[in-house]
Amino acid sequence: MSSDRVRHPGLMNKVVSAEEAALLFKDGMTVGMSGFTRAGEAKAVPMALAERARKDPLKISLITGASLGNDLDKTLAEAHVLSRRMPFQADPALRKAINDGEVMFVDQHLSETVEMLRTRQIGPVDIAVIEAVAITEQGGIVPTTSVGNSASFAILADKVIVEINLNQPDALEGLHDIYIPTHRPTRMPIPVVTPESRVGLPFIPIDPDKIAAIVFTEKLDSSSTILPPDDETRDIAGHLASFFLNEVKQGRLTHRLQPLQAGIGTIANAVLHGLVDTPFHDLTMYSEVLQDSTFDLFDAGKLKFASGSSITLSEEKYHIILKDLVNYKSRLILRPQEISNHPEVVRRLGIICINTALEFDIYGNVNSTHVSGTKMMNGIGGSGDFARNGYLSVFVTKATAKDGRISSVVPMVSHVDHTEHDVDIVATEFGLADLRGLAPRERAPLIIANCCHPAYREQLMDYYRDALKLGGHTPHMLKDALSWHTRLSDTGSMLKDAETVAKAG
Amino acid sequence: MSSDRVRHPGLMNKVVSAEEAALLFKDGMTVGMSGFTRAGEAKAVPMALAERARKDPLKISLITGASLGNDLDKTLAEAHVLSRRMPFQADPALRKAINDGEVMFVDQHLSETVEMLRTRQIGPVDIAVIEAVAITEQGGIVPTTSVGNSASFAILADKVIVEINLNQPDALEGLHDIYIPTHRPTRMPIPVVTPESRVGLPFIPIDPDKIAAIVFTEKLDSSSTILPPDDETRDIAGHLASFFLNEVKQGRLTHRLQPLQAGIGTIANAVLHGLVDTPFHDLTMYSEVLQDSTFDLFDAGKLKFASGSSITLSEEKYHIILKDLVNYKSRLILRPQEISNHPEVVRRLGIICINTALEFDIYGNVNSTHVSGTKMMNGIGGSGDFARNGYLSVFVTKATAKDGRISSVVPMVSHVDHTEHDVDIVATEFGLADLRGLAPRERAPLIIANCCHPAYREQLMDYYRDALKLGGHTPHMLKDALSWHTRLSDTGSMLKDAETVAKAG
Ligand SMILES: CC(C)(COP(=O)(O)OP(=O)(O)OC[C@H]1O[C@@H](n2cnc3c(N)ncnc32)[C@H](O)[C@@H]1OP(=O)(O)O)[C@@H](O)C(=O)NCCC(=O)NCCS
Ligand SMILES: CC(C)(COP(=O)(O)OP(=O)(O)OC[C@H]1O[C@@H](n2cnc3c(N)ncnc32)[C@H](O)[C@@H]1OP(=O)(O)O)[C@@H](O)C(=O)NCCC(=O)NCCS
Repeated sequence: MSSDRVRHPGLMNKVVSAEEAALLFKDGMTVGMSGFTRAGEAKAVPMALAERARKDPLKISLITGASLGNDLDKTLAEAHVLSRRMPFQADPALRKAINDGEVMFVDQHLSETVEMLRTRQIGPVDIAVIEAVAITEQGGIVPTTSVGNSASFAILADKVIVEINLNQPDALEGLHDIYIPTHRPTRMPIPVVTPESRVGLPFIPIDPDKIAAIVFTEKLDSSSTILPPDDETRDIAGHLASFFLNEVKQGRLTHRLQPLQAGIGTIANAVLHGLVDTPFHDLTMYSEVLQDSTFDLFDAGKLKFASGSSITLSEEKYHIILKDLVNYKSRLILRPQEISNHPEVVRRLGIICINTALEFDIYGNVNSTHVSGTKMMNGIGGSGDFARNGYLSVFVTKATAKDGRISSVVPMVSHVDHTEHDVDIVATEFGLADLRGLAPRERAPLIIANCCHPAYREQLMDYYRDALKLGGHTPHMLKDALSWHTRLSDTGSMLKDAETVAKAG
Repeated sequence: MSSDRVRHPGLMNKVVSAEEAALLFKDGMTVGMSGFTRAGEAKAVPMALAERARKDPLKISLITGASLGNDLDKTLAEAHVLSRRMPFQADPALRKAINDGEVMFVDQHLSETVEMLRTRQIGPVDIAVIEAVAITEQGGIVPTTSVGNSASFAILADKVIVEINLNQPDALEGLHDIYIPTHRPTRMPIPVVTPESRVGLPFIPIDPDKIAAIVFTEKLDSSSTILPPDDETRDIAGHLASFFLNEVKQGRLTHRLQPLQAGIGTIANAVLHGLVDTPFHDLTMYSEVLQDSTFDLFDAGKLKFASGSSITLSEEKYHIILKDLVNYKSRLILRPQEISNHPEVVRRLGIICINTALEFDIYGNVNSTHVSGTKMMNGIGGSGDFARNGYLSVFVTKATAKDGRISSVVPMVSHVDHTEHDVDIVATEFGLADLRGLAPRERAPLIIANCCHPAYREQLMDYYRDALKLGGHTPHMLKDALSWHTRLSDTGSMLKDAETVAKAG
């Protein structure tokens, strides 16, 4: 079995235990690890590193594709191994360490990390740790359920540790399309012209001499933490489907729509799932993470092709899909996140981008990352790569959070990740606002009327009316602009009249 | 003479007066006019339209490339012709009408307007009015000192009015490179791979039957309103030059740097001018607007090639350069703003982007548009196209405004145009902060120490220290975050201790 998996003849003598591999790390190193939205992360070596650090303290800067599964970010944070972490995470324990100022978190557009590494604006990467299905005859690394930044980590690092995961199915081989843009200033166009374009290699090409250790593992990916669609997410999906139908009626889109991107999390997944019961067909995806909804759409005969950087599934779906991968394989590509999120390709393909907001404001500015303007939730992820450069940028959220004590539609967002320029459509379970071609004074009444929870609507309209008296292109009362957030921290609710809290629940 | 300028044999019978052409407009129309940063705007027809509207009121939606010269935006605003204006402006009278809510201003990334028009998400354009040097034998339109959105306006509009400007030099012909991307979802890569790449036609190809009127004019472009470099802008330029030199020393850049973009206005022009006295050489520009500094760099033998979408010069430079255009022509290209600002090309070429902030905050978020968060200055322009997608994103500003009563470095910006993710370097006359790879808690002390005016430094450090006590990835006290701006409006200064105002002057 292991000779199928490590096919390069000279490499079997590099096989070591995870504990031995963990001895390669030195305090202060920068480490690039595979893993994107809980898929395809190296599993044994980081665990062994945490174990080692408990006895023999050391700190590293850890760069990944995106979030890690198997509680790795938690384990590493709790072992105090992380001095610096980029470009994305989604773990409660690490989040706490970040918000406490213990871990320096660099929250980046997901397409940019390897551009900065390649030009040595960050890094360099001392060691790359990559989960693989196999090493080819020539020493090429075949990734597993994600590509993320793995290819560039392996190419740029001094040393590479490969974790061969014997439980990741063989069928993954051939799924990946590894293309690395040429160096600037002599970069040629990236030849991806449809989601189906295959432009690279099915493995990561590196000099096999750089492979410093090979570790065998068997641990599965963690399943995704998303919740199934509920009434509210179904309503959001319904508003979006009606909007798309109207675009078709207006002749701006066809029933094939345009390549779809959907962000991580419960809401974006549910919204995409909502397309199962619509007349749209022959859809394609050009996204980062392929979640359950991608496969629901395949199974419903709605989706023709999906390109992503990872596959992240619920426990139930994971076992079904990975067993049945050969049946989906001809309709799937996994790419480096630099390419799945590349501004060039996102703009060229004319992507419809659906991402999730924590909150948006009456002018359409979006906060996707900072709870009450200060506490990091996960990070901006790829949302900025898509929202800035796509054909249509949609942001969705439930109208309230925390049993109605928080309105997700506020006078002024407490942190801006996406400016009004990058936001075409906002939607909650109450409705959708089409902001294209509108000035701020036209956006506000529409957002308040269509998207705000009824319990907050009057209060929000009052703010806007008072702000209007002060004038300006984007009317605000700076003294009160963030008062909803300070009221929340003072009284436990954004509602002025606390008795009406129940209504908003 | 006019037969050199209107070479298509069938078109001379379309020549009319500006007043006659102005009769083609109807109330409620959407009009696309040439003009980008005060260069190459149609001059006679909009004036005649304003004149007509004074007697016979009518309103239009006006789309241009960017700002107009010759007081056109002022004249049109004062004649109440504008119901809607996009995507950029820079006129005090229009600004007032926007801030009063009379004109609906849609502030857009400059690369996006024609994408939205082409897909009918905005528009359609009823009439295009384009200033031209000439109409070719086949009916192609040769633009003047700007391309902006003119090509797409002419291609998409039902009717086209051409203003042949007899005082714009013949030598402009051959300077332009008109390339229009193919329609999505079957768009091919844009073949621009260096600033020098010529990929299109030297004229705008349209069906000559669409030309509804031709008007002859002789008015010159207005000169730019930028001020010459002063001590502060020289200091900013100096900090940036030292930074670039260190990048060369670190092996990240060469003395040729990478293609440069510099934003509109006094400060960006002065900073670019500052490269005249540096060891950098064989520089190239891939920018929107080419200002005086571009030609200073040519004349100093520093600049090899410049690609832009317009040429906007001071009065003195204008006469010299336009007379001498043949000598610069082989080193210049003017492109549609969709191409000069295209995310695909900006990322591919690895552009160094230098834009101006009104204010930035301790975490590196930038406000380029809204005075005190509400009043529109000019618009975001192309800064977002460049800052998001370039190789290195620099924002510059003087540390204070209005005789020291305003600090341009604040706890939290009152409006966000560029998020911390899009800002690598910030600089004022006091110094520069290199934010690459840093977390918010690392950015703040650096920005406060290096960029803030000494009179505000302690006050800003106090804010940060107090905010730190509340914790969070991006520490803020939401109650006080905008207090500098409210203090300004209450007391006339952002300084806590009004006596120290003098110090900051
Ligand atoms: C914004 C984001 C956190 C939403 O995630 P989600 O799973 O769809 O949404 P949920 O409604 O479950 O919200 C997640 C949490 O945020 C809370 N929340 C939602 N809105 C909130 C608000 N306005 N203020 C405070 N908390 C809020 C929810 O209560 C929930 O809290 P819990 O975990 O304690 O239950 C997630 O989409 C994200 O991280 N986005 C940024 C990255 C991104 O967009 N990537 C896209 C390309 S992959
Ligand atoms: C930001 C911008 C207005 C600065 O212009 P500039 O000519 O370089 O800078 P100045 O220092 O002369 O500032 C312009 C005005 O803003 C004022 N100002 C500067 N900082 C300010 C602040 N923090 N608060 C309020 N006003 C401020 C100045 O006092 C000056 O006012 P005045 O016209 O009454 O004298 C200009 O660069 C812009 O519009 N940028 C946005 C578009 C853009 O970046 N395009 C780039 C691609 S073209």
